[in-house]
Amino acid sequence: MALIVQKYGGTSVGSPERIKNVARRVAKARAQGHDVVVVVSAMSGETNRLVALAHEMQEFPDPRELDVILATGEQVTIGLLSMALKDIGLPAKSYTGWQVALTTDSAHTKARIDHINDAKMRDDLAQGRVVVVAGFQGVDRQGDITTLGRGGSDTSAVALAAALQADECQIYTDVDGVYTTDPRVVPEARRLDTITFEEMLELASLGSKVLQIRSVEFAGKYKVRLRVLSSLTDGGDGTLITFEEDNNMEQAAVSGIAFDKNQARINVRGVPDKPGIAYQILGAVANANIEVDMIIQNVGAEGTTDFSFTVPRGDYQHTLKLLQEVQKNIGAASVDGDDTVCKVSIVGLGMRSHVGVASTMFRTLAEEGINIQMISTSEIKVSVLIDEKYLELATRILHKAFELDKA
Amino acid sequence: MALIVQKYGGTSVGSPERIKNVARRVAKARAQGHDVVVVVSAMSGETNRLVALAHEMQEFPDPRELDVILATGEQVTIGLLSMALKDIGLPAKSYTGWQVALTTDSAHTKARIDHINDAKMRDDLAQGRVVVVAGFQGVDRQGDITTLGRGGSDTSAVALAAALQADECQIYTDVDGVYTTDPRVVPEARRLDTITFEEMLELASLGSKVLQIRSVEFAGKYKVRLRVLSSLTDGGDGTLITFEEDNNMEQAAVSGIAFDKNQARINVRGVPDKPGIAYQILGAVANANIEVDMIIQNVGAEGTTDFSFTVPRGDYQHTLKLLQEVQKNIGAASVDGDDTVCKVSIVGLGMRSHVGVASTMFRTLAEEGINIQMISTSEIKVSVLIDEKYLELATRILHKAFELDKA
Repeated sequence: MALIVQKYGGTSVGSPERIKNVARRVAKARAQGHDVVVVVSAMSGETNRLVALAHEMQEFPDPRELDVILATGEQVTIGLLSMALKDIGLPAKSYTGWQVALTTDSAHTKARIDHINDAKMRDDLAQGRVVVVAGFQGVDRQGDITTLGRGGSDTSAVALAAALQADECQIYTDVDGVYTTDPRVVPEARRLDTITFEEMLELASLGSKVLQIRSVEFAGKYKVRLRVLSSLTDGGDGTLITFEEDNNMEQAAVSGIAFDKNQARINVRGVPDKPGIAYQILGAVANANIEVDMIIQNVGAEGTTDFSFTVPRGDYQHTLKLLQEVQKNIGAASVDGDDTVCKVSIVGLGMRSHVGVASTMFRTLAEEGINIQMISTSEIKVSVLIDEKYLELATRILHKAFELDKA
Repeated sequence: MALIVQKYGGTSVGSPERIKNVARRVAKARAQGHDVVVVVSAMSGETNRLVALAHEMQEFPDPRELDVILATGEQVTIGLLSMALKDIGLPAKSYTGWQVALTTDSAHTKARIDHINDAKMRDDLAQGRVVVVAGFQGVDRQGDITTLGRGGSDTSAVALAAALQADECQIYTDVDGVYTTDPRVVPEARRLDTITFEEMLELASLGSKVLQIRSVEFAGKYKVRLRVLSSLTDGGDGTLITFEEDNNMEQAAVSGIAFDKNQARINVRGVPDKPGIAYQILGAVANANIEVDMIIQNVGAEGTTDFSFTVPRGDYQHTLKLLQEVQKNIGAASVDGDDTVCKVSIVGLGMRSHVGVASTMFRTLAEEGINIQMISTSEIKVSVLIDEKYLELATRILHKAFELDKA
């Protein structure tokens, strides 16, 4: 008898029939004696439909009002799933974000969770009910509806698991686990039975799309046991995310290749090389709530500096505009950019003890004539920014070079 | 400079273009110096779509969860309208039912309003904002989402106007006022410039569909100045609902003909004629939250009574089932019914001072061979229940008999 938080994404609840399937899967866990809290996304397509409606009203939809609209997607799903559960004899009760209450800051469309009140949920569980919670949404201190950003339902699920001290948080997706890379790009990609939290964090942040990064951070911070499973097939234990390094002496150097097309490069050239310049450039970007990823600074000509960084592609135009204003203040020569780039990364705990991993990566890319525009490294990953037309090729040759197709 | 509550129904907000039209109409009122609170329904078709989804989950959808789902319809509209207002430079802020807060009892799918907190709205108005409120929905004391029943947005609007002591509550619909009867049935029908509250109440409750009955009751109770206007055409002052009798000496006997197809007749025959029987029959129906309209009781054979009444057609099967259980307890001979009936009514304050209005009605119907099944009367109306196949014929001949086509 355990307490399990299950999260089902948009595809898993994409039709009335699929919602009934989710109800049957929940019933199975109940039959095994577990308490279950279910977190659901909007039915697939619904969020896009709502965003399109909003864009018919305003070129840049008001963020507060956009959240009011977007939050309805999950609200419909919790009602439908609760009905489906009741229809097969399982007592159930739905909660929107504000009903839980899951309170957040006021950063509309990308809010962060402050606090979760678990009183109502515990009461329902004690009374034998399945608790169904709308993912992706919360409420701020003013009582305004907020959303956590795309993929925020994963974060909701992990945060609820942490608040409830659940035994396991199961993320049901349309894949059956975490792979060495995207099988659509490299057919030889293998599913990993376990992956360490740190590797998963890098893989998620680098765009493997299986889990949203904030959910993995949350899981790590609150030591939530996290498992990725398929909602479309039966059987299989998916991939378990572990928090301790494998004791296996033969730890592979690299466990996966991640890639991310959601990248755009911004260049600020000919900046007078004075203290505080980086802050003046990146502060303006951070104030606009735009996430900066890779950053490099090079020495330029005659006491000036060239400064480059990457942002999500959707923020590209906005960032360029912002920096054209900053440009005058800091006396930079020019601001330009490129939104046809992508990031490819190799990730692995084993890198710590294996030398030469980065050089193997650079050599492999060079042999195919792929030019590296930026490099960033951490203890367990190496990322390169390249022209997006080489994305598939780079991923395939790196997967082979690090022998990820071999068990 | 006045405070106006405007309500727009589903057709008026049925597409992005129509929502923009509503925004322009609101802007016009703002340009005239008025403060404006806007109440909106779900986009036309949306509520039906959500109800259909719910019915795919459960034959009889759970009422609490149904309200969770239905409330999303208006929530989308308030977000979209607020965006449209901002897009043309009008500061605006949206509120769901729970955000206002509009508190109700817990009778899901047909809740009644308890209290409205006007603090946030007054604050916004003082800051020059247009306040956009989701109609049809509220929140109960447990924090559960409730809805007020079909047409409940009218009630929301009038209740908000009462709470804010607004100068006028304008109900925008797809008709441009209140007519002597439905122009689709009688092309000679005329629009009334004013109608008394009492007449409107009878016309609404009898199914003229222009305004929902509870909204008219509310308006009367709180003396809200209520006006019905067209959202589709420009110009015209619609029909003003007044609370004082016209001083006009030549008050017409009848001001309108209403009809209502949403009727089903239930007969409980051969009931032992003892005190408390009516309560035992109607109490069971009332407990199921089913509204009873016309009631007649006739003397039957050998100390028994025949008891007939009408209910909304959607509650017909449910009522029959309920009474089959009650039948044993009260020893009634049989329970049966008919759901192919309709109600036609003549309404007019002038009836008070004109004799012979009812007899003119009965004679007119008799001359066309239309059989009257039930009769009910009040001070200002006479209603008859007839076979629904005669609805159009009866309305036309009564409209002519009372000379409603003549100004």
